[in-house]
Amino acid sequence: MAEGKPVSAALVVIGNEVLSGRTRDANTQFIGASLNELGVRLKEVRVVEDACGAIAEAVNALRARYDYVFTTGGIGPTHDDITAQCVAEAFGVELVCDPGAVALLKRHYGPERFNEARKRMAYVPAGAALIENPVSAAPGFQIENVFVMAGIPRIMQAMFKGIAHRLTGGKPLISKTIATNLGEGVLAAELAGLQARFPQVEMGSYPSTAQGRMGVRLVLRSTDPEILEAAGEDCLAMVLGLGGEARELDYTA
Amino acid sequence: MAEGKPVSAALVVIGNEVLSGRTRDANTQFIGASLNELGVRLKEVRVVEDACGAIAEAVNALRARYDYVFTTGGIGPTHDDITAQCVAEAFGVELVCDPGAVALLKRHYGPERFNEARKRMAYVPAGAALIENPVSAAPGFQIENVFVMAGIPRIMQAMFKGIAHRLTGGKPLISKTIATNLGEGVLAAELAGLQARFPQVEMGSYPSTAQGRMGVRLVLRSTDPEILEAAGEDCLAMVLGLGGEARELDYTA
Repeated sequence: MAEGKPVSAALVVIGNEVLSGRTRDANTQFIGASLNELGVRLKEVRVVEDACGAIAEAVNALRARYDYVFTTGGIGPTHDDITAQCVAEAFGVELVCDPGAVALLKRHYGPERFNEARKRMAYVPAGAALIENPVSAAPGFQIENVFVMAGIPRIMQAMFKGIAHRLTGGKPLISKTIATNLGEGVLAAELAGLQARFPQVEMGSYPSTAQGRMGVRLVLRSTDPEILEAAGEDCLAMVLGLGGEARELDYTA
Repeated sequence: MAEGKPVSAALVVIGNEVLSGRTRDANTQFIGASLNELGVRLKEVRVVEDACGAIAEAVNALRARYDYVFTTGGIGPTHDDITAQCVAEAFGVELVCDPGAVALLKRHYGPERFNEARKRMAYVPAGAALIENPVSAAPGFQIENVFVMAGIPRIMQAMFKGIAHRLTGGKPLISKTIATNLGEGVLAAELAGLQARFPQVEMGSYPSTAQGRMGVRLVLRSTDPEILEAAGEDCLAMVLGLGGEARELDYTA
């Protein structure tokens, strides 16, 4: 990765259960925060149906545009687990049985329980490298810049920890969060001025009802600790100058 | 909408705070489930940055492809609230001050507190119709098949209730959920056979660790109650025949 250029990533969440509202996705939050720590910026997420056309289109659009692409979901043994096949189609390669995956699965299930359905989980696109699953054996895989992981958060998180060393990040984005009781409309003009004075700091304003009190959280983010510190001090002074309460919160994302 | 053709929708979640992992999106789940009840199917979600290029590209790609598009986030008074402007750009129309929105905001804030920043919230793309905000006045808007709503879940939900009557749905998707203690690998072969016998029923298999017990939830979904009932009975019989426990759960999504 070029020095200074932000390293980017995208996520494809595969699953009708997220689109139907049955399941609330938890993987975006974990992956977004974990990538931040590695100096990789999650730039886009797509939630798509369990359908090869949709999965392959999203993977191909995003892998061309971002440094890394992650997918979650659809790598189990049942008929609706089609991610490996769809990613193979996206890359235009064959789906092949991986001997290493067979060995892992056979050891996990034992020879009698390692049936045809479970054998499906040993198929990966040709050229893919396995991603270890320390929870339930069935591996994910990496092909080029695409990392295919499980949908179950506990398994996905374990897989992610195992592949973090394969990612080359840039400078991590660090943040300051300042909570105030002022309304956004009161802050807006001076906040826009502050943003203009610190173009290297990304400033967001988020209304909050934490602890039953209406308020706003101002979030400043930058890869440069000194500039962030200076912007944070000016932001605190701005809030106090407008007659508000200001308090720095302990957030990192 | 043509009789029988499924009515489709997409959602654009606008917000760096979701991509960074700071905030866990709750709007997908609400919108997905609410649309289901109206007979509209959420087919795709994109989470994009607070950047006009990304927002306009997502809105234009999705509005051409799906019957309805919803957006959440970025309609407040601060400099990072750029959704109205980006949607205007996406449609190639001007951003105009809506007199109705001005009246609403002036009444809500009173003449002294209705400052320049808050006046920004009265700007919508030319031709847009307002979406009422019963919580905090600042309206959303609809332009053609695109509905622009707030990001704060409580406000977004109130807005959604106000526009539900503008949507023309098809037959609602109904579901049956069967919980079992069998593993996916044990179920997979017969489940694939069941799916093949009931092509009008969408069958998903989701490993679950609810109540600390590893198990699987089989979810059957269809727009036809009789076919769903028949598939559900066969599914229960299948699980029992494989020696598992089976229990129907009370889910609707």
